[in-house]
Amino acid sequence: MMEPPPSPLPNFLRNPNIKGMDHDVLYHLALDNKTNNLKEMFSDVKFVCFGGSPSRMKKFAFYMVDELKLKLTAGQTLCDISGGSDRYVLYKAGPVISVSHGMGIPSLSILMHEILKLLYHAGCEPNQVTFFRIGTSGGLGLDPGTVVISEAAVDGILRPYMEIATLGMIIQHPAFLNPDLNNELLEVAKDTDCKAVLGKTMCTYDFYEGQARLDGAFCDYSKEDKMAFLKRAHNRGIANIEMESLCFAAMTHRAGVKSAVLCVTLLDRLKGDQIDTPHDIMEEWQSRPQKIVASYIKKKLGIQ
Amino acid sequence: MMEPPPSPLPNFLRNPNIKGMDHDVLYHLALDNKTNNLKEMFSDVKFVCFGGSPSRMKKFAFYMVDELKLKLTAGQTLCDISGGSDRYVLYKAGPVISVSHGMGIPSLSILMHEILKLLYHAGCEPNQVTFFRIGTSGGLGLDPGTVVISEAAVDGILRPYMEIATLGMIIQHPAFLNPDLNNELLEVAKDTDCKAVLGKTMCTYDFYEGQARLDGAFCDYSKEDKMAFLKRAHNRGIANIEMESLCFAAMTHRAGVKSAVLCVTLLDRLKGDQIDTPHDIMEEWQSRPQKIVASYIKKKLGIQ
Repeated sequence: MMEPPPSPLPNFLRNPNIKGMDHDVLYHLALDNKTNNLKEMFSDVKFVCFGGSPSRMKKFAFYMVDELKLKLTAGQTLCDISGGSDRYVLYKAGPVISVSHGMGIPSLSILMHEILKLLYHAGCEPNQVTFFRIGTSGGLGLDPGTVVISEAAVDGILRPYMEIATLGMIIQHPAFLNPDLNNELLEVAKDTDCKAVLGKTMCTYDFYEGQARLDGAFCDYSKEDKMAFLKRAHNRGIANIEMESLCFAAMTHRAGVKSAVLCVTLLDRLKGDQIDTPHDIMEEWQSRPQKIVASYIKKKLGIQ
Repeated sequence: MMEPPPSPLPNFLRNPNIKGMDHDVLYHLALDNKTNNLKEMFSDVKFVCFGGSPSRMKKFAFYMVDELKLKLTAGQTLCDISGGSDRYVLYKAGPVISVSHGMGIPSLSILMHEILKLLYHAGCEPNQVTFFRIGTSGGLGLDPGTVVISEAAVDGILRPYMEIATLGMIIQHPAFLNPDLNNELLEVAKDTDCKAVLGKTMCTYDFYEGQARLDGAFCDYSKEDKMAFLKRAHNRGIANIEMESLCFAAMTHRAGVKSAVLCVTLLDRLKGDQIDTPHDIMEEWQSRPQKIVASYIKKKLGIQ
């Protein structure tokens, strides 16, 4: 079911239709292959970094400019290439795309389809591009601020696949991540000041009840029920909980693209539900997955 | 299972824990009940209007200022009350909240939990507040630009409930909408220049394969499969397809809040997949659900 794409299918895509389409509108990115010269704009892309928050991904793009010692043209700055849409922001810093995906699997899934088509139109090769999700999460038994590199992604009842209702059938798409890439990231993290661990990630469709929180608008279970559930998940290797990893792992695997998920934990869910850490500390924590990925990219590009 | 909340539960909420919480952080709205005087800010709210796009919901707030003939203080304008977060935008125009929900059920679900808690903290009463989703969708057999008022919301395989994996169980939350409110909206629409129809709405977790599109990064079915599926759905009363109605209907029903979903159709999915209508026409279409809801609100407030 998850064999590599047969040769007649275009790179990145498992859809024979796109090749025959004269005009392809990437609607939610406000880009298309007629108005925009996608080859000229994106053919040098080697890394695509995804994160939920638009402002965080804008910041990351400028951070990459600094880290990669890129020279912007005098009098110019980075712009939101998807500025014609207000669904996502998309920046490019040299070979790095930095793009926001909003919250939850459906929002990421729309973006992932359109990014894969964008890279196809740009003429990139799947084996030469790496995707990262750099996000936030709730941790289990970890000091807040720890970065979890996902060795696997599972849903709210620990199933390692994403389901898509497709033409009346529920199709299961297995979520695989790359152990070699993860080990490299773990090595790179040692040279940063960021604590990183490998662990399984639970990916839910709901932030409150789906993650056993007691503080949503609805809650029909007790604190004891909550703790029992989270502890059982923790005992089975779940290190953190977020809302996109399953889709990220399933769709990149399906497209034949190497990918990793690095999420910082903002709190220990075995101790509480509410996120009330001061803004500046949270900001520093959120930069940690970015630092690790930046170090990895610099290493790959041979930049000291 | 869906009985009205027993009396000890606070308004809007089916969660006894919130009452005992001294501090409640509405994290994704960047508001909380200590820093912000939520009663002072929101106690007069009577209508909450949700839509996917931040810029559209900002425009809607200013449109309501005009329509309700609100006087802004000299030298002042509306601001994004959730400006401390970049997840959603939230504006208030008199008794109307206008808030963006992003794309897909998980993104809406986070917001819905926090809006319900906000209204509870503000001291509003569920039976005095009405929620609207004013959005966009793909239509089935309708002229693009038609507004569909959802008489029911179903998932991608026509199930009329939203599932939430909750502490290891898959709980089904039935999606009910209000027939009386729908009929009132249909009446009001007649006095606008917007064509509106009642119909069932299919709500999917994926925009491409989940909606039988041929133009995603992945597609392993034929054009004939697609058309057969969409026609069968159409024959069973599905008038349009979008990505939030199921959650909207299920969560408002659960909270005991009257609600309606009005989505304009941007294309006829029996004829195509791509959205390539010129920007200005699309803008006018997207304003149609807003016009109908504005007329309804004005009628309720006795404004000519």
